[in-house]
Amino acid sequence: MEGKKVIITGVPGVGKTTVVNEALKKIKEEGVEYKSINFGTFMFEVAKNDNIVQDRDQMRTLDRAVQKRLQQRAAQAISQIPGNVLIDTHASVKTPKGYLPGLPEWVLREIMPDCIVLVETDDDQILMRRITDETRSRDKEGSRSIAEHQQFNRSIAAAYSMLTGCTVKIVINADFLLERAAEDMAAVLR
Amino acid sequence: MEGKKVIITGVPGVGKTTVVNEALKKIKEEGVEYKSINFGTFMFEVAKNDNIVQDRDQMRTLDRAVQKRLQQRAAQAISQIPGNVLIDTHASVKTPKGYLPGLPEWVLREIMPDCIVLVETDDDQILMRRITDETRSRDKEGSRSIAEHQQFNRSIAAAYSMLTGCTVKIVINADFLLERAAEDMAAVLR
Amino acid sequence: MEGKKVIITGVPGVGKTTVVNEALKKIKEEGVEYKSINFGTFMFEVAKNDNIVQDRDQMRTLDRAVQKRLQQRAAQAISQIPGNVLIDTHASVKTPKGYLPGLPEWVLREIMPDCIVLVETDDDQILMRRITDETRSRDKEGSRSIAEHQQFNRSIAAAYSMLTGCTVKIVINADFLLERAAEDMAAVLR
Repeated sequence: MEGKKVIITGVPGVGKTTVVNEALKKIKEEGVEYKSINFGTFMFEVAKNDNIVQDRDQMRTLDRAVQKRLQQRAAQAISQIPGNVLIDTHASVKTPKGYLPGLPEWVLREIMPDCIVLVETDDDQILMRRITDETRSRDKEGSRSIAEHQQFNRSIAAAYSMLTGCTVKIVINADFLLERAAEDMAAVLR
Repeated sequence: MEGKKVIITGVPGVGKTTVVNEALKKIKEEGVEYKSINFGTFMFEVAKNDNIVQDRDQMRTLDRAVQKRLQQRAAQAISQIPGNVLIDTHASVKTPKGYLPGLPEWVLREIMPDCIVLVETDDDQILMRRITDETRSRDKEGSRSIAEHQQFNRSIAAAYSMLTGCTVKIVINADFLLERAAEDMAAVLR
Repeated sequence: MEGKKVIITGVPGVGKTTVVNEALKKIKEEGVEYKSINFGTFMFEVAKNDNIVQDRDQMRTLDRAVQKRLQQRAAQAISQIPGNVLIDTHASVKTPKGYLPGLPEWVLREIMPDCIVLVETDDDQILMRRITDETRSRDKEGSRSIAEHQQFNRSIAAAYSMLTGCTVKIVINADFLLERAAEDMAAVLR
């Protein structure tokens, strides 16, 4: 049997990685394994192998057509990986020019995911997590702006689902309820 | 002149069938007729004719690729029906793995509907209708979850519209205002 | 270097044209120029040249297939324009049959915009602007209906973004803050 492709998304500070790690631990005990991939890192590796960039910062300065080709090649390579694959990326990225789609058509058509997970929580909780996390420096934004971003992610996830037929699962990672979030995500991965 | 294809959607308990029937009665008096099709039933008939399934419960256990092929074949057959066609289905279905799109790309490209109708009402009203309807056993969900589902349906309907150029009409079926909802739907069907 | 294609949208009364004009003035001082196009007018010119219509009112009565062909031809022509192009249109148009997509797939695939801007503001402010603008007669609608339209526009913009990879920028044109809106839009155009 072919494996599952599950895409995990969430705005910065929502605790996506924590939930993923807890969920993977759970299902590993049950004998279910996933290969974890970060889409951005994977794309960078493709670009480095092709001598298009030397370091990661250069990724942001690429020409739009080059970027598109890299995205597509990375997606193609991911679609060839056997077994269950978990792809860590963003539904959309907030940039000075607006929301940039994390999974444009040419990426989706290659990966054809089984499920896209939106890890979410209350915008105020996300704000607090960002403020108190001193290990990373993030662009400042208020809770209204965070709410807008999460709403946009739901909308674009709906479009992703129309194109691929994948399900869209909302997993709430609320304060003090990590175990609950991990279990919800594990249910998708099983 | 070719007929119209109108797709009617709405979350369980919103009273979709009641509104449709009232609207069809109205326009019939004016000489406008529609052939009514339930997409799920239609797909089941296709599957039974092909000896893929014997009973309807088996539909849910089909392999993803088989399901996709069946959806597409059903959509093709519907697109061949002459005259006005009303297609009863879901914008999305709530499943344990998340929201499943009712009208993925391969279905839409065949049907190319003129209009997708979202029958909606206040989430609390839907909750009450579900609680008091003892003729059907439905999965339990709270009003917040119903609101989320309706919101997701609006988003995915927007994506459907981008792909097909169809209009998206929201028809509110509020308590005590069925006549109003039926008239709004009739206006789309005329 | 090839130019940028930026699509500007906003519900009637939001002040889209005012913001665009202020933003264009700003960037012109910096040496950045855009060719401004109104998509509806452009389509009408195409139709008139082809002797499909004589006056603009006839545009609304066209057969769906003819309309689609015209939209696509207009989009093709726009994609051929060299340099920076600003396209003034609607994310969706409210019609008696529901929301009609302003940028269906066949338009987007030709234009492949860099950015879609949603000019928005509080629904009550839009209502007031419509009420007090006596130079234009517009369909009456309440603020809830305006809010619904703006929400739908965000959803469909997300779908546009999935298909083209363009960014979606929300520019708020709030009362007394035109300068702020113009600066936000200028930042997208630069």
